[in-house]
Formats: sequence, structure tokens, C-alpha cells
Amino acid sequence: MTRFDKSIDKELVSFEHNHLQRRFYEIRNNKVFELFVISIIIFSALMIGANSYQVSPTTMQVLSVLDVIITIIFLIEIFIRFIGEPDKVRFFHNAWNVFDTFIVIVSLIPIDDSEMAVLGRLVRIFRVLRMISIIPELRILINSLVKALPQLGYVMLLMFIIFYIYAAIGTTFFAAINTELWGDITISLLTLFRVMTFEDWTDVMYETMAVYPLSWCYYLTFIFFTAFAFLNMVIGIVVNVLEQERQIEADLNNKEAGEPTMLELKQELDEIKALLKAQHR
Amino acid sequence: MTRFDKSIDKELVSFEHNHLQRRFYEIRNNKVFELFVISIIIFSALMIGANSYQVSPTTMQVLSVLDVIITIIFLIEIFIRFIGEPDKVRFFHNAWNVFDTFIVIVSLIPIDDSEMAVLGRLVRIFRVLRMISIIPELRILINSLVKALPQLGYVMLLMFIIFYIYAAIGTTFFAAINTELWGDITISLLTLFRVMTFEDWTDVMYETMAVYPLSWCYYLTFIFFTAFAFLNMVIGIVVNVLEQERQIEADLNNKEAGEPTMLELKQELDEIKALLKAQHR
Amino acid sequence: MTRFDKSIDKELVSFEHNHLQRRFYEIRNNKVFELFVISIIIFSALMIGANSYQVSPTTMQVLSVLDVIITIIFLIEIFIRFIGEPDKVRFFHNAWNVFDTFIVIVSLIPIDDSEMAVLGRLVRIFRVLRMISIIPELRILINSLVKALPQLGYVMLLMFIIFYIYAAIGTTFFAAINTELWGDITISLLTLFRVMTFEDWTDVMYETMAVYPLSWCYYLTFIFFTAFAFLNMVIGIVVNVLEQERQIEADLNNKEAGEPTMLELKQELDEIKALLKAQHR
Amino acid sequence: MTRFDKSIDKELVSFEHNHLQRRFYEIRNNKVFELFVISIIIFSALMIGANSYQVSPTTMQVLSVLDVIITIIFLIEIFIRFIGEPDKVRFFHNAWNVFDTFIVIVSLIPIDDSEMAVLGRLVRIFRVLRMISIIPELRILINSLVKALPQLGYVMLLMFIIFYIYAAIGTTFFAAINTELWGDITISLLTLFRVMTFEDWTDVMYETMAVYPLSWCYYLTFIFFTAFAFLNMVIGIVVNVLEQERQIEADLNNKEAGEPTMLELKQELDEIKALLKAQHR
Repeated sequence: MTRFDKSIDKELVSFEHNHLQRRFYEIRNNKVFELFVISIIIFSALMIGANSYQVSPTTMQVLSVLDVIITIIFLIEIFIRFIGEPDKVRFFHNAWNVFDTFIVIVSLIPIDDSEMAVLGRLVRIFRVLRMISIIPELRILINSLVKALPQLGYVMLLMFIIFYIYAAIGTTFFAAINTELWGDITISLLTLFRVMTFEDWTDVMYETMAVYPLSWCYYLTFIFFTAFAFLNMVIGIVVNVLEQERQIEADLNNKEAGEPTMLELKQELDEIKALLKAQHR
Repeated sequence: MTRFDKSIDKELVSFEHNHLQRRFYEIRNNKVFELFVISIIIFSALMIGANSYQVSPTTMQVLSVLDVIITIIFLIEIFIRFIGEPDKVRFFHNAWNVFDTFIVIVSLIPIDDSEMAVLGRLVRIFRVLRMISIIPELRILINSLVKALPQLGYVMLLMFIIFYIYAAIGTTFFAAINTELWGDITISLLTLFRVMTFEDWTDVMYETMAVYPLSWCYYLTFIFFTAFAFLNMVIGIVVNVLEQERQIEADLNNKEAGEPTMLELKQELDEIKALLKAQHR
Repeated sequence: MTRFDKSIDKELVSFEHNHLQRRFYEIRNNKVFELFVISIIIFSALMIGANSYQVSPTTMQVLSVLDVIITIIFLIEIFIRFIGEPDKVRFFHNAWNVFDTFIVIVSLIPIDDSEMAVLGRLVRIFRVLRMISIIPELRILINSLVKALPQLGYVMLLMFIIFYIYAAIGTTFFAAINTELWGDITISLLTLFRVMTFEDWTDVMYETMAVYPLSWCYYLTFIFFTAFAFLNMVIGIVVNVLEQERQIEADLNNKEAGEPTMLELKQELDEIKALLKAQHR
Repeated sequence: MTRFDKSIDKELVSFEHNHLQRRFYEIRNNKVFELFVISIIIFSALMIGANSYQVSPTTMQVLSVLDVIITIIFLIEIFIRFIGEPDKVRFFHNAWNVFDTFIVIVSLIPIDDSEMAVLGRLVRIFRVLRMISIIPELRILINSLVKALPQLGYVMLLMFIIFYIYAAIGTTFFAAINTELWGDITISLLTLFRVMTFEDWTDVMYETMAVYPLSWCYYLTFIFFTAFAFLNMVIGIVVNVLEQERQIEADLNNKEAGEPTMLELKQELDEIKALLKAQHR
């Protein structure tokens, strides 16, 4: 084999690969292929549901066979996506692709072993999340949610400070009354979250009011502060969303129509006036 | 009877029918007739209410006689509406008309037989819904609600995915703790809906925390995710509604006043400048 | 006494009355007088609160003396308002004046008799409402609330129809399971309101699910429909309020600045062009 | 020592002080210094949390030593801030500085004595609030919340009047049924707050309905009134916030771009027309 032969060989492989890549790329963007994958995900979700019911051993076996088939289909699908991607590095830069690949690879773990079985089951459940990575509209929704999060960061921090201070006060005074509700700071935080959701909060209050008759102040101020901070957060989001909408609208108005500004009109008028005055002299 | 006679006969029928149609059309659009039908619907609703109380046999008989009368009135009303409609095919294209006719026809089933009795009673209850088909404002309200639904489709799907994943996890881990709450995936979904409404959710949590002390993470993350998705949905509707309002307003402004755009003003100014420059030379 | 004397006498009375009216009118609009009345109302509210505690007989006597004094002060205040009003007929056209007069007159009933005592006490409680009739900002708030009500009328009607239909269905199916919750249509309506507030709604549901395993559909659809209608109502109010704000703002912009419209500018430009063209020829 | 020497001495002190002030001013505005203080506050918060768990005596001693160190660091920090401030009087005009100084000074009280120990612990908890005084974004958030409060004053007052009247009625009628819920006006107010949060409100209602079957009217009207007032408050805030946003936006548009108004354009056009007409003659 000469050097020349090797080069041809390499080119042939490359050619074949390019050919495959183009075909797989077409498959990947095929609407039918997408619908097929979505239906497989839904079927896999239904299987998880079916597993939760008490089923006969025969059905159990059928389900485990189907599970293997689904796992193989997912493997092939990821393979097609990877080969179909023109830029292999960019494939793993997309967080959704990494997530998909991870989920599918971990699904290969058999569910026999007791310790690993739980992990295997959990991974099978999280396969439902692949719906989000496949349907673009859901992906957009999640992205916009994630984008909104940091803006709420400071309100969240403020809320946590309120929670922490009340939890510390609660633990200091009420720990002796009921350790199950106010035992330490973590338990107190949980109890306060319960109070915020109004879940049997009066039971918690009446218990401490038996010892400290004025402890209703503690609960009422806490409810007011958290409700106020929560309201602030909601309003913050609404205003933010409306602001964005307005910005988009304003940009559309200005750019699409190519409308001149009032200032431009004024400048035109000034030019005309100058011309007229020049004539006048 | 000659062919000519038949033709006259037919024409007479047609004439009589046209005459009837015109009269019934007038009745149909009569405000008094509408008010009469609304009051009959309200009366029928009150009768359903009265039936739920324990009444003497005499009243029972009176009520059943009244029920027959109401059914007959409704039949006549639908008949008037149908005859009064100039275009008979279009009558059944209107979903509300089909609904009305269906409800009235099924009301003809007597309430004696035990099996059919329940159906008969249910149909009598749904006659209250005829209020919506009669009062235009309610019809508009329902239509706008139905229109808003598909826009919320993806948020609903996202919410269902969240619910499904948490229900699957819940069934996997908590089924052994309490089968009544986490027995299978349907029950778990119901339990999670209960948690979302904050209904005694701490009872559910404390039970599982006795076995898995960290299971509070499960509940708190679930509450955060659903609250966030729900908030997103509400904001989506608000923004949508405001957008529509703004669109309507903008259209009104532009069309009614026949206002020129900034661009048109600019063009006018350019023309004037050209004229002036021509003079100048 | 001659006719002349009588006339003078009458004039004197009239003069005196006019004099009084003017002085009382000044008192009525005096800020100090207003603050005094407000403090008396607050004091009267505190007395009602004090009455709810177990007090010694001496304090009881002091309170009843104070009650008489407050009633007399209120009587004098209403008298001043009435005399101070230039147009006596208009005084009773104002709903708040009628309300005030009614409350004060009914307060004259002594609290001795057992039957009347309850009425007397209730009237004393409703004297707190006089705060609204005195403070203009609260009056504006109430008026805007009352104005918003009719716009919500149809959503309220729709909500009531949903409630009524579900109550009728609930009574039909669940009355045999628990008469205390589903006994007749009124009780069912109350139970449904409870379900809407999520108050122990799962207890209600689990009870009926024991007989009808699919009855969760009934509750979930009900919650969805009412939540949707409620959301619609809230959005309706928000949009309405924003609309009003925008209208007010737009009116202010247009009227105060006396800004010309785009159309007026266009007409001016057309005139200028006509002048230029005339020169050109 | 001559007068001259004294003057030099004073100048030297002043010079040294100025030197210190400038250096401390630099430290104060140093980002690293700020981060260090924030981490100390977080560490102090974690220590409070750790204190709530049952810890070994050795850890207890370590914690108390650490507490002394933290207190000293805070003292030094406040000192640096004070010296670093060019205008000493202005230092105490800032409410946050006063709060910080107060908290740090009260922290000096040892936690040995039983009576003072509780105060000492509380002050240590409130040190977490220093986070707000240090992080500017949180300070802005709190300021905007405080600014929003007075605007809500009248709605709050209206809500309190509703609460007070219902509490007075509740005490009058229901005190005999259950003194624990309706004993006096304060307890009734608390019970009504509970009803407003929908916390087991039906239990409260069913109890009084056993005596007064129509008492559901009392609860339903109360829920409607408070929900309505609450809704009004929320809408008030939203509208207010949107108004402010719009104002800021409008101001930016007008001032930054220096856009002429429609009126100015009209005046320009009028001038041009006058010039043209002058030429024409």
C-alpha cells in the first residue's frame, strides 16, 4: 500500500462520512422523525406510569423488553443527531444535547441491582424531560424562565434574609415549646414556609400563644413582610415583561417603518426657513 | 290535479312558510320574547334547586307538571328559532343552536326509569347553560376564554411534564409509605395537585419525612416549579390581553382619525425644499 | 302687632338663620372640627372594643355615660351640618348624609330592652362606618369600588352559573353520601365555595371518591373553571383600570398642551406648498 | 510651649487625621473590604444557625470566641466608616449608619446574664439585617417598598375598618359560642385574619352555623369585602408602578433626545408661511 493509496482511502472514508452526515442531517430536521421521537418519549412516559401499577409477571416481562427497545431507539437517535451535526464540537456546547446524551447513556445501566436500580428508574423518569429538548416552544419557555431568574435574585435574597431572621427568633423562643416545629434553624425555616402557605398556620400560632400570648405579632408581621416581598417580586416580573414587550414593539415601529424622528422634521424645517430667508434678502 | 295546480299549491305552501318565517324571525329578535325565555330558564333552574329539598308529594306533582310545561315551552322556542332562521343549514352550523336543540330533545326522556332518570336529571341541570347561549355578553365571554386556551397550551404541557416527573418520583419512593397517597401514578398526580393547592400538604410531607428526612426538598422544589410555571401562565395571559387592547387602540387611532404618518410629513417637507431650491437657482 | 312688625320679625328670624347658617357652614368646613369628629368616631370605636372585654361595673357605668355624650355630640354635629347646608333639599340627596342621620337617630334607642339592645349595639358598631363618610379619600375609594362592580356583573353571573350547575350535580349524586355537605342546593353551593378556597377540599373529595372513584374529575374541573373565571375577572379589572389611566393621561396630554395633531401639521404643509407653487408660476 | 507651638501641634493632629480619613475613605469604598464585611455577616448568620443545634461544649467555646472576634471586626468596621466619612454630622443622618452602630454597640453586651442574654441573642440575629445596609441593591429595594407604603395607607385603613366592624359584630353574637375564637375584639380580629387566609375557616363557620344557621352570610360577605379591598390594593400598586415606569420612560424620551414638541413644529411652519406670504406681496 503506497502513501497515495492511503490518501485515497482516507478521502473515501471522509466522503462516506460526509455523505452520511448530510443524510442524517436531513433525517434530524425531518418533521416525521421528530414526531416519531416525541411519540417514543410519550410511550416511555406511559410505561413509567404503567410500572407504578401492580402488573402481572407477563406484562412485567413485556415492559422490560419494551424498555430495552426504547433505550436502543434513543441511542440510535442520539447517534443520528451527532453524526448529522456538521460541527461536532458545537454539539456538546448545546446544554440540551449534553443532557440528552447523559440521560440516554445512564439508561443503559440495567435495573437488576438494588442500589443502581433506583438510579436507573430515576433516569428513566427524567427521559420525560427530553420532551423539552425536542419541542422548540418548550425550550423557549424554559429559556425565558431561566432568564427571568437572576433579575429576581435580590428579591429572593431579601426574602431569605426575612426567613432567616424569623427562623432564628423562632428557634430562640419556641424551641422549648415544640421541638418538632422549632427544634433547629432548618426545621424553623420549613415551619415558616408552611406558615407562608397558610397551611394550618393557626395551629402553630395557638401553640406558641399559650406560652407567649403576644406571639401572634411574630406570625402577622412575618406574613405581612413575606406577602409584601412576594407581591414586589410578582410586580417586578410583570413590569419587566411589559417593558420588554414595549421595547420590542418600539424597535419594530422605528426600524420597520423607517419613520423619521421629530428632531429630523425640525431640522428639515430649519433648512427650509434658511432657504426662504436667503431668498428674502 | 294538473301540474299547474301542484305548482300553485307549492307556491302557496312556500308563501305561507315565508310568511311564518318572517313572523317567527321577528319574534326571535323580540326583546320581550328573549326576556321571557331567560325567565323560563331561571324558573327551570329554581325548580332544580327546589327538587333538592325534601318536598311534599303534592309539591312533587306540581313540580313534575311544571317540568313538562317548561319542556314544551323550550320545544316551541327552538321550533320558532328554527323556522325563523332564513338559512336552515346555517342554523346547525352554530354550535350553540346544536347544543340547545340537543338539550331540549334529551329533556323529552321521562324521569321514571331509574337508569335514564339520572341522565334526564343531568340534562335538566344543563338547561341552565342555555343562559349562556341566550345572553350575548356571556357568549362573548366564553368565546374569549376559549380563544385564550390554545395560547396557554405549551405552559399547560410544561406544567403537566413537571407534575408527571414528580408523580413518577413520588410513586417510586413513597408508595411503600402510604399507598393511599402514592399508590400509583394517577393517585400521585392527585396528591401533587393537592400539594399545589397547599391543602394539608405538610401532613403529606411530614409522613414521608419520617422515612426520608430530606424529602422536604421534593415538596419545596415542586411548589417552586409549579408556582413559577403558574405565574408565567398568568403573566402570559395579562400581557396577551394588554397586547390585544393596545392593538385595537392603535388601529382605532390610525384608521378613524386618518392621521398622516411622520414619513408622509417628511416627504411633504422634501417636496417643499425641492420647490424652494428650484426657485433659488 | 301690625303686619309690619310681623314682617320685621320674620326678617329678623331669617337674618338670624342666615347668620347661623353661615357660621355653621364655616364650622363644617373647619379642619379642626373635622379632626374633632374623626377623633370622636375613633373614640366611639375604641369604646365598642372595650365593651367586648369583661369590665367592672364602675367602668360599665362610665362607658354608658360616655356613650350618651358621644350620641349627643353626633346629634349636634349632624345638626350643624344640616343648618350649615345652604340648600336643605340637597342635604338628603347625598347618600352619606342620609346614612349618617339614620345611624345617629337609631343610636338614640336605649340599650336596656333585650330585643332592641342588639339593634342598638349594631348601630353603635356601624358608627365606625362614619369614618368613610367623613374622610374624602375613603369616600373616593368606595365610589371607585362601586363603579367597578357592574362591569364585573357578567363574569359574576357566569361564575354563579358554574357554581349552580356543579351544586345541582353534587346534590344529585353526593346527597346520599353526606347530607351535611350535599344535603340541598344551598348547602352544596356553600361546600363548593369551600372547595374553591381550597379549605380541606381533599377531605370532601376523598369522602365521595370512596363511592364514586372518578368523582375527582368533578372537583378538578370545578377548580379549573372557577380559577379560570376568577382569573378572567381579575384581568378584566386590571385592563379596565389601566385603560382608564391611559384615557386620563391621553386627555391631559391633548388638552393641557394644546398640541396640534399630525393632520393639522399636514394641512399647514399643504398650504405652504400651494403658496410656493403659486410663486413658481 | 508657645501659642505658636500649640498651633503647629493642632495642625499636625489635623493633618494626621486628614491623612487617616482619606485612607479610611479609600478602604470604605474598597470592593474587597465590602466583600470581606459581607462574608463576615454571612459567617455570623451561619453561627446563629449553628447555635440552634445541640453542640458539644468544645464547639460552644469556639463559637463564643468567634462571636467576640466578629463583634470586634464589626466595631473596627464601623470605626473605619466613621473616620472615613468626611462630614461627621452627616454620618448619623443616614438611618442605616445609625442602625449599624446601634446593633454593633448593643452586641457588646455579654450573653451571660439571663435577662440580657435574650436581648444579646436578638441583637446578634438582627446583625443579619446589616446585609441590607451593606448591599446597595437591597437598600434600593427596601426604600422602594417604604415609598409604596403611604400610598396604600387609605386602602389599609379601609381594610381595618372592615375588619373592626366584623370583629365587633362577631364578638357581639359569637362570644357565647366560643370564647377562644370570639372572646373579645382582639381575639375576633385574629380569628377574622385567619378566615381571610382561608385557614380552617369552615370549622369556624360550621361552629357558629349550629347556633345561627344564617351566619354563613357573615363569613361570605367578609371574604368578599376583604378580597375586593385586597385586589384593589394590588391593582393600585401595579398601576402605580407602571405609571412611574411610563413617567421615567417619557422623561428619558423627551430630555435625552431633545425632541421638539408638535407645538414647536407648528410654530416653525407658521413662521415659514408668514415669510412666504411676505414674499408673495
